[in-house]
Amino acid sequence: MLISERIRLKLILVKIGGSVITDKKVYRRFREESCRKIISSLSSLKEDLIVTHGAGSFGHIIAKKSGFPKRFRKEDVHDFSTVHRDVLDLNIRVSSIMLEEGLSPISIPTQSVYVGRSPDLSAFKKYLSLGFTPLGMGDVILRAGMVKIISADDLLVALSAVFKPNLVVFMTDVDGIYDNDPKTFRDARLLKSIDRSIAFSKVMNDVTGGMKSKYEKILKIRKHAGMVVVVNGNKPERLNDIGKKDFIGTVI
Amino acid sequence: MLISERIRLKLILVKIGGSVITDKKVYRRFREESCRKIISSLSSLKEDLIVTHGAGSFGHIIAKKSGFPKRFRKEDVHDFSTVHRDVLDLNIRVSSIMLEEGLSPISIPTQSVYVGRSPDLSAFKKYLSLGFTPLGMGDVILRAGMVKIISADDLLVALSAVFKPNLVVFMTDVDGIYDNDPKTFRDARLLKSIDRSIAFSKVMNDVTGGMKSKYEKILKIRKHAGMVVVVNGNKPERLNDIGKKDFIGTVI
Repeated sequence: MLISERIRLKLILVKIGGSVITDKKVYRRFREESCRKIISSLSSLKEDLIVTHGAGSFGHIIAKKSGFPKRFRKEDVHDFSTVHRDVLDLNIRVSSIMLEEGLSPISIPTQSVYVGRSPDLSAFKKYLSLGFTPLGMGDVILRAGMVKIISADDLLVALSAVFKPNLVVFMTDVDGIYDNDPKTFRDARLLKSIDRSIAFSKVMNDVTGGMKSKYEKILKIRKHAGMVVVVNGNKPERLNDIGKKDFIGTVI
Repeated sequence: MLISERIRLKLILVKIGGSVITDKKVYRRFREESCRKIISSLSSLKEDLIVTHGAGSFGHIIAKKSGFPKRFRKEDVHDFSTVHRDVLDLNIRVSSIMLEEGLSPISIPTQSVYVGRSPDLSAFKKYLSLGFTPLGMGDVILRAGMVKIISADDLLVALSAVFKPNLVVFMTDVDGIYDNDPKTFRDARLLKSIDRSIAFSKVMNDVTGGMKSKYEKILKIRKHAGMVVVVNGNKPERLNDIGKKDFIGTVI
C-alpha cells in the first residue's frame, strides 16, 4: 500500500466504526462486504497493526433498551449476557474475515482489560510482539456495581497512551470530521485538517454533544500518536492518499 | 429437577464434552440438538453453575494438523488464530443456547485465565457472585514460548481446587467409565462407582493412556469436590437419577 512507501511507520492503530460494519438500525445486521473491503485494505499494510471495532447494532440496541450504562441489578444479568454474546458474535465475524484475508487476529476481551485501576493492555503487547494482530472491541463491562460501556474509542485512548502509535485511523460512515453534522446539514463542510490546539467550539457547531466527546478523545489520542486520521470506512482505499493533497478525510 | 430435591447442593461444575456437542470427525460441525438437550437440563437446576465445554472438532482437527502442542514459531500464528477463533465460535453457539434457555452465561476466555503462575479464576468468581453462569472452554494458549492446549478437564481441575463444588458432572459420549474402551470392546463393563482410593490400573485395562490421564484428573477433582459423576451427555435426563439405585453413569 502506498501509505507505507511514503511515510515510514511502525505501528498503526485502527478503529473500525460500528456504523460501517453493521446496519445501526437493524439488530445484529452485519455488513460483511464493507468489513471485507476494510480488512482487505489493512491486510496489505506492512506495519504492525492493532485493530478495534465498535459494536454497532450488535451492542447499542439492547444496551439502550436495557438502560445501560446503569447501576447493576440482578435483573440485568440476561441483558448483560446478551450484549456480551452479541459483541463477541460480531467480533468473530470480523476475526473470520481477517483470517481469510491473511491476518492472524487474536481477540482481546474488553472485560479482561478493564479489571484493575488502569486498563491492562498486556495481552495486546504480548500478541503484537509475537506477530499477531490484536483485535479489541467495544463492549459492556461490570465494575464497582455498575454496568459500563467501554467504546472502541475508549480502548484507543488507552492503547495510544501505551503504544505511542505512528498513526491512528478512525474509519467512520462519513468522509471525516465536518464543521456541522453532515447527515443533517447539507452545507456541512469537511475539515481537511484540524490543528489540535484549537478547541472544539472553534471548529464545530455541535448540537448533540456526541461529536464533542469523540473529538475530545481524538485529542487525547493525538497527544500520544504521530498522526490521527478520520476517513470514510466505506472507501478504505483513501488510506492510500494520506499525505497527498487530494486526500479525502480529516487529519489531526 | 429431582437432583436438587434429594441432595442439597450449592455449586455444580459441569463439563460438556466436545464429543457430545460436536461431530469429532467433521471440522466445525456443531450438534445443536445435543447441546440444547444438555443446557435445557442444566437450566432447570436450582444450584449455582459453572459450565465448561471441550473444543471437539472446532479445536482438535486444526490443532493436530498443526502439531499443537509445540514450541511456538512465527509460522504458527495463522493456525493458532484459527483454532482460537473456532473455539470462540463454538463457545458462542453454546452461549446462545444458554441465553435461549434462560441462563445468563459469561464467556471467560482461557487465555486470560492462564497468564501468571497459577490460573487466575477471579473472573469466574466475580461473575458467579453476581448471578451469572461463568462459561469456560478448552482452548490453545501461548506461554513461555510454547503453544499449549488447555482442556476443559484442566480447567475443571483448577476450578474445583478453588470453588470446592458439591458436585462435578462430566458429560461424555458414553454411559460413564468402563473397565475397557467400550467403543472397541463390546464386553466392556460400565463401572457404576469407583472408590477413589483405587489406582487406575486396578480398575481399567487402559490401552491408549487417554483414559488414564482423564481418570487422574478426575481423582484430582474428587479431592476438592463432594462427588464426581460421569454421565452420558446424550441422555442428560439421567442427572435426575443421581443417588438412585438405577442411575446409569459412574460415581466417583
